Amino acid sequence: MDAVVWVKTRSMKYSFYNDYAEGVHPKVLEALQASNLSQETGYGEDSFTKAAAELIRGAIGNPGADVHFVSGGTQANLIVLSSMLRSFESVIAVESGHINVHEGGALEATGHKINTVPGVHGKLVPRAIEEVCTRHDNEQMVMPRAVYISNSTELGTVYTKEELRALSRTCKNLGLYFYLDGARLGSALTSKDSDITLAELSSFVDVFYIGGTKNGALLGEAIVINNPDLQKDFRYHLKQRGALLAKGRAISLQFRALFTDDLYFELARHANRMAALLANAITTSGYTFLTPPSTNQLFPILPNTVIESLQEDYGFYVWEKGENTSSIRLVTSWATSEEAVKVFITKLKNS
Amino acid sequence: MDAVVWVKTRSMKYSFYNDYAEGVHPKVLEALQASNLSQETGYGEDSFTKAAAELIRGAIGNPGADVHFVSGGTQANLIVLSSMLRSFESVIAVESGHINVHEGGALEATGHKINTVPGVHGKLVPRAIEEVCTRHDNEQMVMPRAVYISNSTELGTVYTKEELRALSRTCKNLGLYFYLDGARLGSALTSKDSDITLAELSSFVDVFYIGGTKNGALLGEAIVINNPDLQKDFRYHLKQRGALLAKGRAISLQFRALFTDDLYFELARHANRMAALLANAITTSGYTFLTPPSTNQLFPILPNTVIESLQEDYGFYVWEKGENTSSIRLVTSWATSEEAVKVFITKLKNS
Amino acid sequence: MDAVVWVKTRSMKYSFYNDYAEGVHPKVLEALQASNLSQETGYGEDSFTKAAAELIRGAIGNPGADVHFVSGGTQANLIVLSSMLRSFESVIAVESGHINVHEGGALEATGHKINTVPGVHGKLVPRAIEEVCTRHDNEQMVMPRAVYISNSTELGTVYTKEELRALSRTCKNLGLYFYLDGARLGSALTSKDSDITLAELSSFVDVFYIGGTKNGALLGEAIVINNPDLQKDFRYHLKQRGALLAKGRAISLQFRALFTDDLYFELARHANRMAALLANAITTSGYTFLTPPSTNQLFPILPNTVIESLQEDYGFYVWEKGENTSSIRLVTSWATSEEAVKVFITKLKNS
Amino acid sequence: MDAVVWVKTRSMKYSFYNDYAEGVHPKVLEALQASNLSQETGYGEDSFTKAAAELIRGAIGNPGADVHFVSGGTQANLIVLSSMLRSFESVIAVESGHINVHEGGALEATGHKINTVPGVHGKLVPRAIEEVCTRHDNEQMVMPRAVYISNSTELGTVYTKEELRALSRTCKNLGLYFYLDGARLGSALTSKDSDITLAELSSFVDVFYIGGTKNGALLGEAIVINNPDLQKDFRYHLKQRGALLAKGRAISLQFRALFTDDLYFELARHANRMAALLANAITTSGYTFLTPPSTNQLFPILPNTVIESLQEDYGFYVWEKGENTSSIRLVTSWATSEEAVKVFITKLKNS
Repeated sequence: MDAVVWVKTRSMKYSFYNDYAEGVHPKVLEALQASNLSQETGYGEDSFTKAAAELIRGAIGNPGADVHFVSGGTQANLIVLSSMLRSFESVIAVESGHINVHEGGALEATGHKINTVPGVHGKLVPRAIEEVCTRHDNEQMVMPRAVYISNSTELGTVYTKEELRALSRTCKNLGLYFYLDGARLGSALTSKDSDITLAELSSFVDVFYIGGTKNGALLGEAIVINNPDLQKDFRYHLKQRGALLAKGRAISLQFRALFTDDLYFELARHANRMAALLANAITTSGYTFLTPPSTNQLFPILPNTVIESLQEDYGFYVWEKGENTSSIRLVTSWATSEEAVKVFITKLKNS
Repeated sequence: MDAVVWVKTRSMKYSFYNDYAEGVHPKVLEALQASNLSQETGYGEDSFTKAAAELIRGAIGNPGADVHFVSGGTQANLIVLSSMLRSFESVIAVESGHINVHEGGALEATGHKINTVPGVHGKLVPRAIEEVCTRHDNEQMVMPRAVYISNSTELGTVYTKEELRALSRTCKNLGLYFYLDGARLGSALTSKDSDITLAELSSFVDVFYIGGTKNGALLGEAIVINNPDLQKDFRYHLKQRGALLAKGRAISLQFRALFTDDLYFELARHANRMAALLANAITTSGYTFLTPPSTNQLFPILPNTVIESLQEDYGFYVWEKGENTSSIRLVTSWATSEEAVKVFITKLKNS
Repeated sequence: MDAVVWVKTRSMKYSFYNDYAEGVHPKVLEALQASNLSQETGYGEDSFTKAAAELIRGAIGNPGADVHFVSGGTQANLIVLSSMLRSFESVIAVESGHINVHEGGALEATGHKINTVPGVHGKLVPRAIEEVCTRHDNEQMVMPRAVYISNSTELGTVYTKEELRALSRTCKNLGLYFYLDGARLGSALTSKDSDITLAELSSFVDVFYIGGTKNGALLGEAIVINNPDLQKDFRYHLKQRGALLAKGRAISLQFRALFTDDLYFELARHANRMAALLANAITTSGYTFLTPPSTNQLFPILPNTVIESLQEDYGFYVWEKGENTSSIRLVTSWATSEEAVKVFITKLKNS
Repeated sequence: MDAVVWVKTRSMKYSFYNDYAEGVHPKVLEALQASNLSQETGYGEDSFTKAAAELIRGAIGNPGADVHFVSGGTQANLIVLSSMLRSFESVIAVESGHINVHEGGALEATGHKINTVPGVHGKLVPRAIEEVCTRHDNEQMVMPRAVYISNSTELGTVYTKEELRALSRTCKNLGLYFYLDGARLGSALTSKDSDITLAELSSFVDVFYIGGTKNGALLGEAIVINNPDLQKDFRYHLKQRGALLAKGRAISLQFRALFTDDLYFELARHANRMAALLANAITTSGYTFLTPPSTNQLFPILPNTVIESLQEDYGFYVWEKGENTSSIRLVTSWATSEEAVKVFITKLKNS
């Protein structure tokens, strides 16, 4: 695909809006095609789902993990968290957390409060968790019972091994479940700032999900439940929230492809490499960032005149608008064309 | 595909369990492939979703309808119904209705009661609606506000035009929203017992959904909202329940293919034709049915010895077990091989 | 109070509508008055609440029980049941059960389904429970987890010791919590058809509530939790549903009075005695009953002409209207005047 | 009552913990007693409830208002707010708002998110509302639909007429319902810092409640619905949340007494006068306050040594603990004895 040509012929702008602008990686599509007419059991009890779950159990190094495949991230978050909590229990998250801002009140619709705390570049710190728990000590208030983080975060930053270990320890000490939203887990783990493997990360959390939608799948996320207490009856939760798909294979087949031959991480590395090209050019052009560039989401601060110039050819969100300069969000993906990135850089340097 | 060969080589039984045993119709898969790398807006605001919605609006003859694509039937039902109801309002359904039995309490989880009434071969009759409304006349009880039916029903039967008109009129008179679950709408409308077009059916209801999962799609259902009062803010409901997919195209592209060149109904007709072959053979073998055979779901009553013999080579559910005879459920689909049906019939006649 | 005089002077009909037409028994009012200005801790941690709970623990013979005081029966039911159930779990009840019919969908509003079964004179039988559990064996359906009965029932009948023991055993075998709604527990236990003490009844159930509103209190019910697993964190449930009263003493003081000197049962016996007078007169007048007369709720079947005559002077509900005869509901209470009953009987005999 | 004597004889500390330590004002108790045995219709349709509602309609100058009586403040808040909101709609409140902190997640349990903003001495300002609405402009987020304030606030401060008018105008402009929590409305309206009447305040809001529990009632709050759109079917909401009391008279009779001969405001003035005595003494002793002393809740900042000395004889909460000084909360009520206040002041001056 030649991005420039494409932009021209379609007379549309090239999109850096997000990492779900394109369809599905060809190898994933092939996987759907190959097995298409074999008959399988419904509702996630098919052989493809079993195979995909097995591949993921291998990748995380936990043969006892349960793996479930669902159609989207908000769905994953609302089901996992509500399955962890009794009616009066709450989850702790940073203010910028996806569940707090961009899920349309999905968690509250299941009856639960989110205890929000300020983040540090979008990241949660143990002290904030402790303070919430200290403050919530009787039944006039909700009872904090789970912790939510996303990696990479909504601001493109990543957690280090030490940070995750500290959060994990804090959760254990306080009797809290630790849940990690991995909508962009591939990009996080292949970031230059990440020092942790998938298996290590998995060992720190009770539950997490591996994002497919934003890293090569047509749609779908893989929920991984490490904590045996949380495994029991989880399919009841899936069913009740409308997430137990009759054709479970539709999602799991994609993950089987993504977790074959390292494809999942290969795609993430590409997205990060495209972002790094952009980040370097932005830095060498003398601009700074709202948060340190680590993954496939960049938040450069640019003069408004430059932004306007770039908007002629490219689509992206203006994050925080200022009088003279504003931060924008640029997102790359497995499908981002290197050519498109280079032309963007040229335009940036000439703006 | 030669079903018999396939059964032999895989040493598995041929499945008449359901209509979602296979993957996706080849033409639908092609549609996913063809447009794969074009960049699109997320969350159902892409050009493919617009095109698919337009095709459906054409097919139902209502240019003012809203069309939304979601990943499954339970999800469609819980979102549509909860979007119609204030917290103290309820929905009327037959006891065998899918929302009452096989959705894991999904509707109750959104806070709403189902007022159940006995069905006639799985169908709802106006008088039952009226009786519920007469009885619920003050705030000690819930307030009925919607009516749920499925067509075809959970027992494989279909509504006639006159029956739907009568239900529609009753709903209007009583101020109730009328919602139709079309998980198997294709099979219903192409049934020998159906005398109604998609457009006519659509004109009778406030909202309905067109089932894709069970008729050729990889996954997905199309919610059609005719009533303008119910259109407003529906995307908020989708988002809050985890149903607003980042890649909305994943579902809508499939419906674009299904509603091109009559594919949707062609597939349904095939399923019905396969069922009719089975039904005729069963009848000529001297057996009867729990409910009249109309669509792709059959409920023959067979001697237990015959059932056991058939179970050697075929997969299907025993519906109601009796001492000497039992009813079973046989389901055909767009993917059911005529060869498999013929071998089944031979086996039946020899059992 | 002379009922006849009162009826005349107020030119209102004497009410047999229900058992909450009057205010509060004088001794209960005295209790509120006596302690009025002493300062107490809030939210049910006051000394009066402790004393009332202790009296109830003594009466039921379970020193380990937890006792909580709430303002009404629907509130008690919705909090107790939702506290027992995980989101996908349901409660089994007879179709005529108060939670199913006359609580405005309160339980469903907490997210839970009620599995209804036919009752026998309003009573639940073990076989019906077993059938529901057999049928609900996978995650396409809700998971039954609790059983609800009321004693006396909504139709005025009572459970015998053997019936309660059988239900209790069935619940234990099937892993179900057993909950008893005691809105009219006093009338049940002092019924001529009851062979069980409060302590025996308590020993059969995990949780029950002792109704105050309908037996002498101004308002209020006492929830008794025998099962230690269900005791923990119950105050969180109370708070979250708006039931943890700042002045918990307002209810508990009333129960302290009701459980002093057998007042609770004395009042119930009076109500039953008034009902028995009515029942005897109805029987000797040659009329029958919808359900056997046992407690303070009677359902005689009378000629419509007699009903119309009685309606001139008395208020009561027509239960099931027929062409020539109808059943009506007559309810007596601790406050029902024997004089009023006698005049009613005279009128009946002359109608 | 001589507080000092009482403290001595009961060997308990005198409580400044809250304004619900005592029972009920004698005149309210008398009201309960006087009408005790008259028969009335149940569920809030009795003549006493009608009379009390009429008195309140008179006091607020809105003959079209609906008035409902419930048993507590958290209950009032959760029912009113959830009745205003569709499932995806939210309410805006200050971080210190009672619904956000001290209601055990009651509102979230009905499915709704609270959008919190920083307060100014516990008060909400129009600009904060506008910012929330500007930010929430699509279906990825909840839709703000209501505004919650309390007067007096959780920090003892009061809104002026101009502040309430500005908030009311902002709500109208933005299409938001405006709801006022009046748990301590009496104390607010009789504050030296308040320049508004009950009728004026009522005219600014769609719904509010008049707190009884903390101002002389045994228990109970009066919900006032001015906006006709919100009046319809409100009893269904009450019933579904377990708040429609069989003996509605139990609460309404108390409000009939409180709104006779200005009793409600007389009691509030007493509480404020006791608080003013304390506040003056604290000020003249050279201490300051966390928030300006306005109502019956004071937040003085005292040396820890002084606090410890006071704790020997008095009960109160330490609000924010510091190394050398801390803020405490002192609450007075209709029942606070002037003698107790004077002895406290002496002790303070000698500490």
